[in-house]
Amino acid sequence: MYTRAITLRWKDNDVYGHVNNVEYYSFFDTVINEYLIESGLDIHNGTAIGLCAESHCTFKAPVAFPGQVEARLRVDHLGSSSVRYAIELHSDRLLAEGWFVHVFVDRETRQSTPIPEPIRTCLAQLS
Amino acid sequence: MYTRAITLRWKDNDVYGHVNNVEYYSFFDTVINEYLIESGLDIHNGTAIGLCAESHCTFKAPVAFPGQVEARLRVDHLGSSSVRYAIELHSDRLLAEGWFVHVFVDRETRQSTPIPEPIRTCLAQLS
Amino acid sequence: MYTRAITLRWKDNDVYGHVNNVEYYSFFDTVINEYLIESGLDIHNGTAIGLCAESHCTFKAPVAFPGQVEARLRVDHLGSSSVRYAIELHSDRLLAEGWFVHVFVDRETRQSTPIPEPIRTCLAQLS
Amino acid sequence: MYTRAITLRWKDNDVYGHVNNVEYYSFFDTVINEYLIESGLDIHNGTAIGLCAESHCTFKAPVAFPGQVEARLRVDHLGSSSVRYAIELHSDRLLAEGWFVHVFVDRETRQSTPIPEPIRTCLAQLS
Repeated sequence: MYTRAITLRWKDNDVYGHVNNVEYYSFFDTVINEYLIESGLDIHNGTAIGLCAESHCTFKAPVAFPGQVEARLRVDHLGSSSVRYAIELHSDRLLAEGWFVHVFVDRETRQSTPIPEPIRTCLAQLS
Repeated sequence: MYTRAITLRWKDNDVYGHVNNVEYYSFFDTVINEYLIESGLDIHNGTAIGLCAESHCTFKAPVAFPGQVEARLRVDHLGSSSVRYAIELHSDRLLAEGWFVHVFVDRETRQSTPIPEPIRTCLAQLS
Repeated sequence: MYTRAITLRWKDNDVYGHVNNVEYYSFFDTVINEYLIESGLDIHNGTAIGLCAESHCTFKAPVAFPGQVEARLRVDHLGSSSVRYAIELHSDRLLAEGWFVHVFVDRETRQSTPIPEPIRTCLAQLS
Repeated sequence: MYTRAITLRWKDNDVYGHVNNVEYYSFFDTVINEYLIESGLDIHNGTAIGLCAESHCTFKAPVAFPGQVEARLRVDHLGSSSVRYAIELHSDRLLAEGWFVHVFVDRETRQSTPIPEPIRTCLAQLS
């Protein structure tokens, strides 16, 4: 499991006083991309990039700025050109559970491409 | 079906040049809340408010600023205190399909509460 | 003057029930970049890109989702490699006045570069 | 001076590969509101709230996700019902300098109101 703290921002809170549901997905793709970049993904110039094909979130408890959330990342399924992540968000309790599918594609053609090494190796370590 | 045009913004585009996956969920809760407000929901002072319990999106095609997307809203299931919406996003083609569950709660106690009339009546018209 | 309608989103509203101050700047760089793209700027592959060097906003009146704002763009000063825009946001009244400075730089070196034709010609038309 | 670390998010980066200018203002109102809340401001139920009347930013250097920025907050001018903050954003270097004016108003009437104690006392400590 890979974990990252994410600090909340004033405008995360919506009219109802808590972090808006949309931002939870931003926490998902933040922890995912942070892990990919640490694993060697070059988001600016690399040939292969990861695009979101599907995502899901079940909301368990509200949270509000100020504070921070802890994002916990695991890999549920590792295919040849796609990966499915499982993510949990926590404060002092479980806030949300979600999953997210990345398909790796060629940056120029946007055709699917194998997950490059060493990213695959790193993803396998979260399985 | 209820449809709304949503104009894209410069910062919707991410490093890979297209609208970030997270924003699609923002388009979902924009079209949903717009319909609820037209149906009589008072987001500032009303007793009942809708909180997101679960959401999902399947991404079909990319889209990029500048331009606009059309959000199409239907109701899949209408319960006593919850509603499940189906949403499609379109440009000149289908961009994404998703669903979203609102649970209505009391603004103060955050305990579940029946969907108030006339909102229920309006939601039934989208079934 | 160049004008564009920008539709508001649910999460633009913050805890205090109105569009958060930060989003006003998003409306600024949306109308600016929309005009630049119409003028021929290639945001994905062009050699010259515009980076924000300075911006300012005076907030005159609140506005809230749902609805839309009209952004009005003029050019205050057109230099060799930089441009200063003046922007107004309106609903049924004046919401905000701001200004924004773009410096054009080479995409790779990030060194300042002359504003390319035909973008300069188009900017001159807003002076 | 009051300082807070703010973690960057994937979607902060825009098409040009760095944190979008708009987000800098989000960092401003995050550090400001965090200080106000620590000083006793009740954003959910308090009578007095702070609304942004004017803001400004000079951009000195780019920064990109992943990573974090440090926001440094001082008070430039403390009036009876308004306060002007000076904010700096740093990574390993100065990223931006800005200022931001809050006018305190009554939550219901939105008429200007004196800055409540003990918030005033806390703001004076940053002068």
